[in-house]
Amino acid sequence: MVRYKRSFASDNNAVVHPKIMEALQEANNCHVLSYGEDHYTESARERFREVFGEDSEVFFVFNGTGANVTGLASMTMPYQTIICTDYAHIHVDECGAAERFIGCRLLPLHSEDGKLRPEQIMPALSAVGVEHHSQPGVVSVTQCTEVGTVYTAEELKKLAQFSHANNLLVHMDGARIANAAAYLGTSLKAITADVGIDVLSFGGTKNGLMFGEAVVFFNRKLAQNYKYIRKQGTQLASKMRYIAVQFDVLLSSRLWLENASKANAMAALLAREAEKIPGITITQPVEANGVFVSMPQAAAERLQQRCFFYPWDKEKSEYRWMTSFDMEEEDIMEFIEAVKAAME
Amino acid sequence: MVRYKRSFASDNNAVVHPKIMEALQEANNCHVLSYGEDHYTESARERFREVFGEDSEVFFVFNGTGANVTGLASMTMPYQTIICTDYAHIHVDECGAAERFIGCRLLPLHSEDGKLRPEQIMPALSAVGVEHHSQPGVVSVTQCTEVGTVYTAEELKKLAQFSHANNLLVHMDGARIANAAAYLGTSLKAITADVGIDVLSFGGTKNGLMFGEAVVFFNRKLAQNYKYIRKQGTQLASKMRYIAVQFDVLLSSRLWLENASKANAMAALLAREAEKIPGITITQPVEANGVFVSMPQAAAERLQQRCFFYPWDKEKSEYRWMTSFDMEEEDIMEFIEAVKAAME
Amino acid sequence: MVRYKRSFASDNNAVVHPKIMEALQEANNCHVLSYGEDHYTESARERFREVFGEDSEVFFVFNGTGANVTGLASMTMPYQTIICTDYAHIHVDECGAAERFIGCRLLPLHSEDGKLRPEQIMPALSAVGVEHHSQPGVVSVTQCTEVGTVYTAEELKKLAQFSHANNLLVHMDGARIANAAAYLGTSLKAITADVGIDVLSFGGTKNGLMFGEAVVFFNRKLAQNYKYIRKQGTQLASKMRYIAVQFDVLLSSRLWLENASKANAMAALLAREAEKIPGITITQPVEANGVFVSMPQAAAERLQQRCFFYPWDKEKSEYRWMTSFDMEEEDIMEFIEAVKAAME
Amino acid sequence: MVRYKRSFASDNNAVVHPKIMEALQEANNCHVLSYGEDHYTESARERFREVFGEDSEVFFVFNGTGANVTGLASMTMPYQTIICTDYAHIHVDECGAAERFIGCRLLPLHSEDGKLRPEQIMPALSAVGVEHHSQPGVVSVTQCTEVGTVYTAEELKKLAQFSHANNLLVHMDGARIANAAAYLGTSLKAITADVGIDVLSFGGTKNGLMFGEAVVFFNRKLAQNYKYIRKQGTQLASKMRYIAVQFDVLLSSRLWLENASKANAMAALLAREAEKIPGITITQPVEANGVFVSMPQAAAERLQQRCFFYPWDKEKSEYRWMTSFDMEEEDIMEFIEAVKAAME
Repeated sequence: MVRYKRSFASDNNAVVHPKIMEALQEANNCHVLSYGEDHYTESARERFREVFGEDSEVFFVFNGTGANVTGLASMTMPYQTIICTDYAHIHVDECGAAERFIGCRLLPLHSEDGKLRPEQIMPALSAVGVEHHSQPGVVSVTQCTEVGTVYTAEELKKLAQFSHANNLLVHMDGARIANAAAYLGTSLKAITADVGIDVLSFGGTKNGLMFGEAVVFFNRKLAQNYKYIRKQGTQLASKMRYIAVQFDVLLSSRLWLENASKANAMAALLAREAEKIPGITITQPVEANGVFVSMPQAAAERLQQRCFFYPWDKEKSEYRWMTSFDMEEEDIMEFIEAVKAAME
Repeated sequence: MVRYKRSFASDNNAVVHPKIMEALQEANNCHVLSYGEDHYTESARERFREVFGEDSEVFFVFNGTGANVTGLASMTMPYQTIICTDYAHIHVDECGAAERFIGCRLLPLHSEDGKLRPEQIMPALSAVGVEHHSQPGVVSVTQCTEVGTVYTAEELKKLAQFSHANNLLVHMDGARIANAAAYLGTSLKAITADVGIDVLSFGGTKNGLMFGEAVVFFNRKLAQNYKYIRKQGTQLASKMRYIAVQFDVLLSSRLWLENASKANAMAALLAREAEKIPGITITQPVEANGVFVSMPQAAAERLQQRCFFYPWDKEKSEYRWMTSFDMEEEDIMEFIEAVKAAME
Repeated sequence: MVRYKRSFASDNNAVVHPKIMEALQEANNCHVLSYGEDHYTESARERFREVFGEDSEVFFVFNGTGANVTGLASMTMPYQTIICTDYAHIHVDECGAAERFIGCRLLPLHSEDGKLRPEQIMPALSAVGVEHHSQPGVVSVTQCTEVGTVYTAEELKKLAQFSHANNLLVHMDGARIANAAAYLGTSLKAITADVGIDVLSFGGTKNGLMFGEAVVFFNRKLAQNYKYIRKQGTQLASKMRYIAVQFDVLLSSRLWLENASKANAMAALLAREAEKIPGITITQPVEANGVFVSMPQAAAERLQQRCFFYPWDKEKSEYRWMTSFDMEEEDIMEFIEAVKAAME
Repeated sequence: MVRYKRSFASDNNAVVHPKIMEALQEANNCHVLSYGEDHYTESARERFREVFGEDSEVFFVFNGTGANVTGLASMTMPYQTIICTDYAHIHVDECGAAERFIGCRLLPLHSEDGKLRPEQIMPALSAVGVEHHSQPGVVSVTQCTEVGTVYTAEELKKLAQFSHANNLLVHMDGARIANAAAYLGTSLKAITADVGIDVLSFGGTKNGLMFGEAVVFFNRKLAQNYKYIRKQGTQLASKMRYIAVQFDVLLSSRLWLENASKANAMAALLAREAEKIPGITITQPVEANGVFVSMPQAAAERLQQRCFFYPWDKEKSEYRWMTSFDMEEEDIMEFIEAVKAAME
């Protein structure tokens, strides 16, 4: 691959990993039944069972919003509330998809570090049994969070135990779960099935895939009618094999871990170098592939001219830099030079 | 490409056209902004304007159900009715996606040949203005129809004029519009923009793409807030370029026509050969890439063992055979041999 | 009560029965808790248990559409289909309320006499288990039907047995169930709980109430979360007692039967007299309080000038005359005179 | 009327005002067309035009949740956000009705005194135009607020101007607007039409009616298709006259003001007396008919045994006492005695 300009706007700006492209090419040589009735899909499902346990069940969908909305729809009645943080992608960045498709209410709780804790959820439980109030139904966490922090297995377990003890199901938006597992040095199972997650949106697109996310059920009963929800939710791919083979490669070769570790390492480097620059403050622990900084607005704008990235909190002059698996040290250092120039 | 077994179950069973694979590979060499803010997407949009006129506006989505549902959502209020045939994909094959996402009512009108005509719609207009009744809002046609027939430009024009005269918008499910244009020998514009279609689902997946459909607006006002509907409808792709480049190739090289013509020719051949076989009756005009036949159930079941295809109407012992762009004459003749064997 | 002009447009045009007005007045003398936590409501619920059996459970709502939509919502998932006739109030006369609130699909089956039969439903079962198709979930019948015919207990039993054998629940829109029971000479329980109905919309407004309908569950499991559905469905009355006392009177004094019998008798008389008039044809069996006639359009229009009523099927020049509990023989004879005059 | 025990739990616990009962009785003497096509309804609509201006348009519905949900549905697309406080009835007390019926997102902003101010809304505007975010569409205020405070005309005007300047519509949940107008000593028009409210839920049930609320449009364009929304929203009453005559009396005789003033006066008296009791703190300005107090939990529970009322904020040991039009000074003093006894 030739050198090209990398973007720090989003891990969505990255390319497709060459091994994924190769797999797509290889699958392109025969007629197979559509909608997942093919051996490619069966093989990918087998990979998921290996990684997440025999009791898990996986379904492929197109994108993260689709995974979240249809997954949550399998867990939530319209008269129930989904409890999340006020940073949650499902609350902030999906244009109200959950409300529209499920008809339910979201309860966004404020969280500085993007994590939910039992004590925050407690007050919401006073609604239980009272018909005037939407009933607490699901706790949705994001791993790693929208501000780049990572729940430990212990934190998740505690949250899930609390939730289950209060008849709440637990959903995980794992658009970047690979980055979380890479950071924690654990398996994917250790922070999902093993800690009590009921349904997981397993991210592929941000970790080297062309398209495709997976909805993984650890609670089989919830999976029972999911196929209808996926179809009604416009997330059933006809040429399913082309999602399946991507996941097959991602999981079978531990490519997921390689990619995530690389992205994380790039973020760590970026943070280390950035905090040396006077006037730049790192505002969140850098645990995965996001670096949140505050810097003078004028400098940020100069920098955005050269290399676009998103403001996070305009009032605090806070910005977000994302790294991805296809970056190299020189990309980081080039960007750091640009930051320095903009800060002058 | 090596020889492999072709399926007559669906045009979804086909591979991705090599030129499309090539385009995907070529686009895989740089960071670009996500969600369509990239030059690949801009180029593909330009292709659509060339094909459908400067006044058209295109948006890319993942699949046909997504295209139909979000396109219709831009045209329909929840208190309105979508009028379609009782064969319509949106009524029969999308698991109630339109009802759930839009909240509207579908009115399925019976049609032997899959086509809607003004005189069928007329009685539904008595509901206009009466609050008890869901208000007629949209007429949705499928081109080519679910039974393989093709509306002429004249038929569409008449229907659209009638519809507009009665304050109804016109939606076209064009999952196989390429096959229709190929059959008619017209441009894509001649059977959409030029006849008064307001919003089109333009199919890609069934005509050689890996994934991706397009929603094309000929009525710009309806497009105004579509971007929010697409996002809320879970149909916004993050790595958009990988849909865009597929359409760019499909349209710029007239690959759409080449593929569709090939599929149609294979269906014509299949029909010609099949009707020579005693006991086989062709039940619908073969105008595109579907062949509908009636044959003894026992024979059909023997044949399905060798090569799966779908029953269409069990009571009439009617079956559907679909051809695709990646079939050759020898595939057809092999299948015909299998049919003959099954009929014995 | 002084004599006043009666309308044949709808049984909704009638007054409130004096005994109901009296009950409302009597209940108006104390503070009680709202939303049904009061002894009036408890008493009315007791009445329902007496009439429908100890295993039934009743909830009060505002109107018929509200009863149907929330009752059906307790029985149907959004990916399911509600099977009904093409005359069904829920399909034709509720402005798409079920689709919007539940998100589900309705499948209207044609029925000349407004009744559903197992053999009509059979073909819809081919969708079972196939993710592309909305799943058959509920059969909804109307008793008496929208065309004034009455299901026998035997017909309902057969339909419910078929439905349950095929994992379908059975809903009854009983806006005029009192008229059906009066016609059949049976109890209300004999054509609901005893024949296998799962959820019933029990009509009050058309039978002498000011406002108020009841949702009666014979399948207790379905009632479990209904209180949330009623609230989310905007059908929870704050001053609940004023619905409850109406139903208490309606059921405890057999006022329901008295009113319904009276309305039926008036329809029977109207039909007997009308069919003597040359040029008038009775088009449906007159079993309850509706009389369907065909008559020359010009005559109908003359008559509508004097006394408005609704056209039923304009193409057939068919009209609907409804009678109500507060009509007397002289009202009928006066109307018959008007018909005769209009026919000349 | 004989003396009976009054409840301080809710103004919903009150009776129907005798003049309203009388009007209901008087209207009960003839057949009239249903669904509002009657002279009673026309007369009531005329009353609303007198009170709210010739440019206003009114529709009657059953209850407050129904008024809010259908009114908001006429103002909001599913991809839009309704901005309200975290006390808002639509967010807290309607079981997610708005989300389910409209499909939109609610954004609850924290407000100690239950009022929204432009500076709180400002940050939400950064979402405008960005497809990932649900689009700010409507600001919904409650007058008087859920904590008994009253917006001044000036405050509302400022909020509405800000909202309109930012393409936001303004909705008012006026379940207790009469109490607000009574407190402010203004007309109803002065705090609605005159300050820029677009759509109002005008409360009747809490101010002496048996049932019935009104949706008043000051923005006629929004009213255009409301009749379909009302029907689809299950809020169209068949025997409409029985809502209409109640409102006719309420407005024509200034009964609305008399009732609201009485309830307010009772709350003022209750607050004056309660704050004399050691250990009781009034926690919100008493401007309408609600008194919010903090008191020791044990005392509150003793008092609730004798006379039920709702906790407001359990953590703060805060409780809500509501007064109603049908209370007299002796009811208040009796309750005060009970409070004193409980506090000992």
